[in-house]
Amino acid sequence: MRQRLNFWVIGGDPRQMALARSLSEDGHTVHTYALERGGEPALAADSLAGAALADCVILPLPAAEGERLNAPLSSQRLTLSQVLAPLCPGQLLCAGMADSDLREAAEGKGLVFRDYFTREELAVANAVPTSEGAIQIAMEELPITLHRARVLVIGYGRLGKVLAGQLKGLGALVSVAARSWTDLAWAQTCGYGVERSDQLSGWLCGYDLVINTVPAPVLGWAELSDISGGCLIIDLASKPGGVDFAAAAELGVKVIWALSLPGKTAPVTAGLAIKNTVYNILTELGV
Amino acid sequence: MRQRLNFWVIGGDPRQMALARSLSEDGHTVHTYALERGGEPALAADSLAGAALADCVILPLPAAEGERLNAPLSSQRLTLSQVLAPLCPGQLLCAGMADSDLREAAEGKGLVFRDYFTREELAVANAVPTSEGAIQIAMEELPITLHRARVLVIGYGRLGKVLAGQLKGLGALVSVAARSWTDLAWAQTCGYGVERSDQLSGWLCGYDLVINTVPAPVLGWAELSDISGGCLIIDLASKPGGVDFAAAAELGVKVIWALSLPGKTAPVTAGLAIKNTVYNILTELGV
Amino acid sequence: MRQRLNFWVIGGDPRQMALARSLSEDGHTVHTYALERGGEPALAADSLAGAALADCVILPLPAAEGERLNAPLSSQRLTLSQVLAPLCPGQLLCAGMADSDLREAAEGKGLVFRDYFTREELAVANAVPTSEGAIQIAMEELPITLHRARVLVIGYGRLGKVLAGQLKGLGALVSVAARSWTDLAWAQTCGYGVERSDQLSGWLCGYDLVINTVPAPVLGWAELSDISGGCLIIDLASKPGGVDFAAAAELGVKVIWALSLPGKTAPVTAGLAIKNTVYNILTELGV
Amino acid sequence: MRQRLNFWVIGGDPRQMALARSLSEDGHTVHTYALERGGEPALAADSLAGAALADCVILPLPAAEGERLNAPLSSQRLTLSQVLAPLCPGQLLCAGMADSDLREAAEGKGLVFRDYFTREELAVANAVPTSEGAIQIAMEELPITLHRARVLVIGYGRLGKVLAGQLKGLGALVSVAARSWTDLAWAQTCGYGVERSDQLSGWLCGYDLVINTVPAPVLGWAELSDISGGCLIIDLASKPGGVDFAAAAELGVKVIWALSLPGKTAPVTAGLAIKNTVYNILTELGV
Repeated sequence: MRQRLNFWVIGGDPRQMALARSLSEDGHTVHTYALERGGEPALAADSLAGAALADCVILPLPAAEGERLNAPLSSQRLTLSQVLAPLCPGQLLCAGMADSDLREAAEGKGLVFRDYFTREELAVANAVPTSEGAIQIAMEELPITLHRARVLVIGYGRLGKVLAGQLKGLGALVSVAARSWTDLAWAQTCGYGVERSDQLSGWLCGYDLVINTVPAPVLGWAELSDISGGCLIIDLASKPGGVDFAAAAELGVKVIWALSLPGKTAPVTAGLAIKNTVYNILTELGV
Repeated sequence: MRQRLNFWVIGGDPRQMALARSLSEDGHTVHTYALERGGEPALAADSLAGAALADCVILPLPAAEGERLNAPLSSQRLTLSQVLAPLCPGQLLCAGMADSDLREAAEGKGLVFRDYFTREELAVANAVPTSEGAIQIAMEELPITLHRARVLVIGYGRLGKVLAGQLKGLGALVSVAARSWTDLAWAQTCGYGVERSDQLSGWLCGYDLVINTVPAPVLGWAELSDISGGCLIIDLASKPGGVDFAAAAELGVKVIWALSLPGKTAPVTAGLAIKNTVYNILTELGV
Repeated sequence: MRQRLNFWVIGGDPRQMALARSLSEDGHTVHTYALERGGEPALAADSLAGAALADCVILPLPAAEGERLNAPLSSQRLTLSQVLAPLCPGQLLCAGMADSDLREAAEGKGLVFRDYFTREELAVANAVPTSEGAIQIAMEELPITLHRARVLVIGYGRLGKVLAGQLKGLGALVSVAARSWTDLAWAQTCGYGVERSDQLSGWLCGYDLVINTVPAPVLGWAELSDISGGCLIIDLASKPGGVDFAAAAELGVKVIWALSLPGKTAPVTAGLAIKNTVYNILTELGV
Repeated sequence: MRQRLNFWVIGGDPRQMALARSLSEDGHTVHTYALERGGEPALAADSLAGAALADCVILPLPAAEGERLNAPLSSQRLTLSQVLAPLCPGQLLCAGMADSDLREAAEGKGLVFRDYFTREELAVANAVPTSEGAIQIAMEELPITLHRARVLVIGYGRLGKVLAGQLKGLGALVSVAARSWTDLAWAQTCGYGVERSDQLSGWLCGYDLVINTVPAPVLGWAELSDISGGCLIIDLASKPGGVDFAAAAELGVKVIWALSLPGKTAPVTAGLAIKNTVYNILTELGV
């Protein structure tokens, strides 16, 4: 990757501000647009036309709502068409959670387009702020310490692995529920207790905290009936979530459904993760 | 220790409620008094006179403000004299942070008196909820994850050791500032970076988070001038604290002074720690 | 899985003895054959004919050398044909590292055949004794402690992950060399330093210990020239290994090529790992 | 401490060689004497007379046997009197495990004398190579992995703390036996199981490995009778050790008594620990 590149960071929340600031600290030329309430006048740009000179244009995560650029730190209301207008064939455009319209528009203009949110290394990096966000919620809600608390992490994908590791690092007594023998073997190797995630009913009453990471209905009436009073459930699964919320309400089980934690709890870290992913894309493209 | 004892838990906050509940779950007979808003009717007692039959009477932490029993969960206003009145010579009275008046009054009545707050094992146990309280504050305040954050823990006593360990468990890059060669050798053995706590000025600009545990003026003007923008300072030292708050305000350094964390962030854990300490006292007395 | 099954354990080394003993301790009926020097007379069997009644017959790892059963603890020389002769269609036969001849012979007789060595959960479980075997070698060879030693683990598959974790657990300063961005992101998340495994030359001189887990030529002349005097290389890659041994000899770099560690350093643990895998196979088959 | 000092390293084993080499790498002028088989010709000295110019003279650990300098890497047989002869009043002489004769002789000549072995930070630093030496022995002797092994560490002083931490880092299931409530509270805080070291009988049968660090008779006939077959005992206590070896022999319990591990298993690390301690002494003296 070249050491001095010209970046345009257009739209987004504090994550994109942190991204822009860090790119600048790394020695690159950075222009921001539609981030004027982000508090970095030094990075401001007056005209979008200059983006035609960018080595890399970075749109936010998510890039847009429908046709409108996602720009909560701006008073402007920009469409994606306006943003793409000044760009020239061959320029690199990176965006997060892009829909097919954006991808097609970009490729139609001859841009090199990459969705950084589809990259595995970003997903790994985002597991950390999500995990810490969940831990913060648990600390705020529980009248006991996580140290020595009996915690069940359901699912042993990226997030489950990071969460189990951080909880163990705090001194929690961690068990992992998973389905595959391989995941269970890994969990045991890492020193966790194990549960079968398809046979949870009857095994849940001993936990002080249950954190679900699986985007599937894993905690229904039978499982929730088995939860002890005082136990907290945190559901990190994206919609529709992994908990039968109606059953939980009826049974009086406390559930907190926490989504989009990285941008909320650690925007600077989340912005740096995007930066590193963009750097990897640039390296692969030989820029 | 005998397996069925008669306990009276008089006054206190949610920690004493958790203590009473846990004593009861262990199979003991438990009476509570001046805890009527603690939400445990099953443990309520109508007359203090019955305390004359107690194997052990437990007062809160702190036991009193002046002559008045510390009883925030009660609408009654009791004096220590009223509490001690029904007790008989030879009975065991445990209290936390007792002043000399209480101790003398108890011993004057021929009671066996113990201040559980002076016990080392309680101090060790309380280090955990204090550490987690500090971590919760840091998570709430910082826009970065503690994972990979550069954290300095000043002081390597009980609290410093637990805090450094939990922060490392979360993946933070932990350094410890201490004065004695022995503490520095231990910190290095545990894998932490080390700083000399009497030579901090000039070495602080690299940290994202500084947590002080030393009850002495360690962060004055010179040290605070060296703190980077964006760095958070958490002062856990009891009064008068370890930070020059006036200097911090003038320099625009963010400081949070957090006291009495165990009772605030993890009252149940803090109550169990008192229970274990009382059990140790009973074992030593051969009760 | 049924609670009382009839197992035949035929041939093998101390791993199979440990397997047989543990099956017996779990309450199953266990017959051993061609293990008569394993020191467990209680498990001995006089005639192979009884194997016709087995719920599960377990051959060793590896099952055979050519047509001959692998049976270093026996004075008998048995062929696989002799071992299979008494078995009946529908019986379960488990073996490790079976070649196609064995598989075909078993399936030709109508047996249900499973090679436990192909199972991912066994590979995970075997990573632990391999890792500890490598650590033991490093402790024996190096004049420094692993605590605070600068260690590079090349490869971040199963073995690399376990090895890096155990080394970090001892206090080593661990770096991981990998090729994919995902592996590098995971390594960083776990707190390790990272190197690009395809760009090692020039980055190796700082290490006290280099452990290779990649079965490909990763340490050639250029890389070995960069190794410091006193540094130890342990190659855990199966044949042909990952180190240019001729170059290492010429350059005076110390390399230890360590293969088949689980059976050598922790036969009992390795035997239990086989048992757990066989249990998983039985559970999946609904036995 | 001044950046260029004149050191004389006289006598000793590979630890002193490592010490001399590292002092030299730090930029100091280093002379060695009575270390001629240590393989460092660059550091050799022809005449002891030059030691009169040393800023610091370092004798080995232990310094002597009786009147004779401890010098296993030399063919010379030197007395302490010969070594001290050229030194002048005011020079600094450091030695390890010095007896009162040496101390008096040094002080009689007006030397500034320090025994580095009495320093707490050296004891802390030596706990690490001792711990790793014990772990190496356990790995060599046991047919199971330390990962998931049930290990009891008796004593929770410096060595017990380091050992428990490294064993846990490998994934062992660690319990600690101690006597004081404070030590037990610390052990529990660190996540270990706990035993009362004065009530071990009846609680030992569940362990695969027992490591004693207490220099007192803790494992007698009653305790050893309770040890399971296959369990290994490692005694790290200095003479007379903590195990009744006669009883162990009679009961068929395997015990390994391992002394002086740092110099044997990690002489270079042990030498660096001496160097750091000497540096601390120099800093305190304002040299």
